[in-house]
Amino acid sequence: MSEGDDQDLGITESKSHNTGEWYAEVVRKAGLADYGPEGMSGFIVTRPRAYAIWERLQGFLDAKFKQTGVQNAYFPLFIPESYLEREKEIVEGFDPEVAWVTEAGTKELEERLAVRPTSESIITPYISQWVRSHRDLPLRVNQWCSVVRWEATETKPFFRTKEFLWQEGHTAHAKSEDAWEETMTRLDQYESVYEDFLALPVLKGQKPDHDTFPGADTTTTVEALMPDGKSVQAGTSHHLGQSFAEAFDITFSDEDEEERVAHTTSWGLSWRALGALIMTHSDEQGLVLPPTVAPTQVVIVPIWQEDTKDDVLDYAEGIADDLEAAGVRVELDDRDERNPGFKFNEHELNGVPLRIEIGPYEVDDAELTLNHRPDGEERVVDRENAADTIRDHLDEVYAKLYAAAEETLDGEVREADDRAEILGTLGQHGGYVTSPWCGDEACEEPIKEPMAAEIVMVPFEDDDPLVGSDGDETCAICGDDAERTAYFAKSY
Amino acid sequence: MSEGDDQDLGITESKSHNTGEWYAEVVRKAGLADYGPEGMSGFIVTRPRAYAIWERLQGFLDAKFKQTGVQNAYFPLFIPESYLEREKEIVEGFDPEVAWVTEAGTKELEERLAVRPTSESIITPYISQWVRSHRDLPLRVNQWCSVVRWEATETKPFFRTKEFLWQEGHTAHAKSEDAWEETMTRLDQYESVYEDFLALPVLKGQKPDHDTFPGADTTTTVEALMPDGKSVQAGTSHHLGQSFAEAFDITFSDEDEEERVAHTTSWGLSWRALGALIMTHSDEQGLVLPPTVAPTQVVIVPIWQEDTKDDVLDYAEGIADDLEAAGVRVELDDRDERNPGFKFNEHELNGVPLRIEIGPYEVDDAELTLNHRPDGEERVVDRENAADTIRDHLDEVYAKLYAAAEETLDGEVREADDRAEILGTLGQHGGYVTSPWCGDEACEEPIKEPMAAEIVMVPFEDDDPLVGSDGDETCAICGDDAERTAYFAKSY
Repeated sequence: MSEGDDQDLGITESKSHNTGEWYAEVVRKAGLADYGPEGMSGFIVTRPRAYAIWERLQGFLDAKFKQTGVQNAYFPLFIPESYLEREKEIVEGFDPEVAWVTEAGTKELEERLAVRPTSESIITPYISQWVRSHRDLPLRVNQWCSVVRWEATETKPFFRTKEFLWQEGHTAHAKSEDAWEETMTRLDQYESVYEDFLALPVLKGQKPDHDTFPGADTTTTVEALMPDGKSVQAGTSHHLGQSFAEAFDITFSDEDEEERVAHTTSWGLSWRALGALIMTHSDEQGLVLPPTVAPTQVVIVPIWQEDTKDDVLDYAEGIADDLEAAGVRVELDDRDERNPGFKFNEHELNGVPLRIEIGPYEVDDAELTLNHRPDGEERVVDRENAADTIRDHLDEVYAKLYAAAEETLDGEVREADDRAEILGTLGQHGGYVTSPWCGDEACEEPIKEPMAAEIVMVPFEDDDPLVGSDGDETCAICGDDAERTAYFAKSY
Repeated sequence: MSEGDDQDLGITESKSHNTGEWYAEVVRKAGLADYGPEGMSGFIVTRPRAYAIWERLQGFLDAKFKQTGVQNAYFPLFIPESYLEREKEIVEGFDPEVAWVTEAGTKELEERLAVRPTSESIITPYISQWVRSHRDLPLRVNQWCSVVRWEATETKPFFRTKEFLWQEGHTAHAKSEDAWEETMTRLDQYESVYEDFLALPVLKGQKPDHDTFPGADTTTTVEALMPDGKSVQAGTSHHLGQSFAEAFDITFSDEDEEERVAHTTSWGLSWRALGALIMTHSDEQGLVLPPTVAPTQVVIVPIWQEDTKDDVLDYAEGIADDLEAAGVRVELDDRDERNPGFKFNEHELNGVPLRIEIGPYEVDDAELTLNHRPDGEERVVDRENAADTIRDHLDEVYAKLYAAAEETLDGEVREADDRAEILGTLGQHGGYVTSPWCGDEACEEPIKEPMAAEIVMVPFEDDDPLVGSDGDETCAICGDDAERTAYFAKSY
């Protein structure tokens, strides 16, 4: 909120050479987040510009959830240790790093309470109570909240923080195929958030069996490519099968009064989506945002001398009014104490997608000069029908961002047919390397061990040309029959 | 979500005789909240029907906030103990019952972290960093979140819980009068939530000086009367003066480059608003909701025999489509397995404001039979222009609820001129007792001690006829000059 000095407006780090430092600088200088207080490393303060983006993302996704039968609810922040222990017993491999409440008021608690690292261990027992009959199914609850995971890694706002915002959906169904349809509905909605709202193309598929969420039958994922060549798991949707339902006794009487065990799913998307958004589109002038999520979509910068001031401002105000009436989020930057150059830099830093410059020439010619944030393209357009024209340009800005990200992604998927080629390609380029794979976890190890790259995704059966190839292809690592394609990548 | 049996639909407790038990029964049977797990008394699970109301309330209030310059942000869930200690030093009387995180992962923390009981001690230091110049003011941030206060009292969903949902706004201003205007803007918005959205008239004023929020100059309040005769503090807005700004160093350079200390405010409204809503309007058939917040505003119940089924359902579907197209939240309850009587009871329990009954007669006469939830009033109206008619009836339902609450409130404000009369009136009727008051805390004690009633509100100067009465009136307790009116009441 502080305007700061001119030099605060410049990004000094290089996106391509020091991606991490550049990202941290954009986050700080564009007023997206501050680090938490001393003694609380790993926590961030989400400032209004970033929170407003999160709210828009919430609005987009939440509307989709509601259109497809999801109801929001709110469950307690704390989970008794015995509940988490119960989950651990059920779910091999579940052992989150938890923050424990041990004292309250002036007393020590009899049982430690976990600050929720995820809520299925508290939500599932309630679902069990609420489901009695097939008429209660499907049952779908979602909550928007923060969760805490005490992972001791370097803080990276929106990517790695000890507390993060997310939504977690939990559903119960009568049949496995219903749960599968649910799993895919949510994954498709996550894909849509990225592709239709954040201008980020993603890859869609499933995690290899050895890397599913503990307890899940199948974990599906959307993966986004970051500019440092790493993949980020950008949203996950789990078909949990009957493991949770059996353990937590989610049963129902079916049409014939038979008692049956339900099939459940869970699915979540976190503020990593914000991180992926910021990191992908932004540049060395600062934040770049698609108009869909930008708190301010259009800024009007009037340029005047003393003798032209009144005319220019009148004209600019008229345009601002027209745009506002048309539902465009517009700001007229008529500050006296800043010159146009400062304003240009500031709004570029803050990621305003479209700038309108208005000087005496524009007034005389009944025109507007537009500037697209992503690439600086300038266009002179008629004042008439300004709102329609601006909307077209906002769409164009969105399309440019999407096309650029798509081109990058397309160029960063490479094929490799043996271990040396996989390692060489990942080492040289990063990105994704696709290889025929036998399906065995052991064949991930020779890549994972030296390179810290893993199989981040396997396309769904219908999308994988190797399915049904019947021995025509062999695993890039072991040489056995390969009927699936593995996407190797380094990941966040 | 479970439909349960017929008997689950009945409320057995009496609203007037056992208000507390009746309230708990409505909350449970109407599917608003469940109690937390064993070992977590004081926590509740907010079920979708209640959470949907909270979301609508958020939407209403948040839009008002945003129209008046407020930006949302998100601050960490935890607050280092040293930050809370600092606040305690500044603010005499601030000593919340806190839940402490002492261990995380497998380690003991060096410093205990409080789960936020309120966030000013962590928000204010950031505001201090963000404010440098008068151009950064006013600065307004708000967060919607949950907070935890470990108060050992009986759980009452939405009124008394250890974790509750709320919003807390924090602002900084250049001048005291700006902060005062801010304080009143938020209080007026709280009044509007109650009066224009929840159909609840409130009293508006300030807390007596001895009962302001610790550290505040002035605490303003809206108070709502509950059916058990107690007052609930339904929203507060504090003019904090310069105490927090001095302690946390919120300073700015003014137009003349002079360093000045800011003036701050804070204001909050919690899900108590939900409690007040449920308790005020509901009855012995269950939940009653104004159409503004009802997840389902209109339910259509078709009533058919085998030979009329197709006609009735066709007709009902046409009406549902019309209403939906007009933006009415409508549900067509065409379940085969439930009879109309069951459906009537269920939708009454769940607080649907308006029921439309459609049988063969309605089809033949091109009519609808309407039933208003609050009072069961029945009306037969034309099918033509159904959407307009329904909207009028929804407005009428709102007006009925407001009028009933207003009539109750008006009847529950009584005057008394001496201690015996105050005690007698409060003991007999509950509600509010107004008395001339000298302003001295000592004169609250003779009421508070025997009756557990206190001065919940003093009208603002402009609204108080005793201001400027210059010795014409004397304090009901001590007999000194009284220039203010005190509202005594028992309170939540």
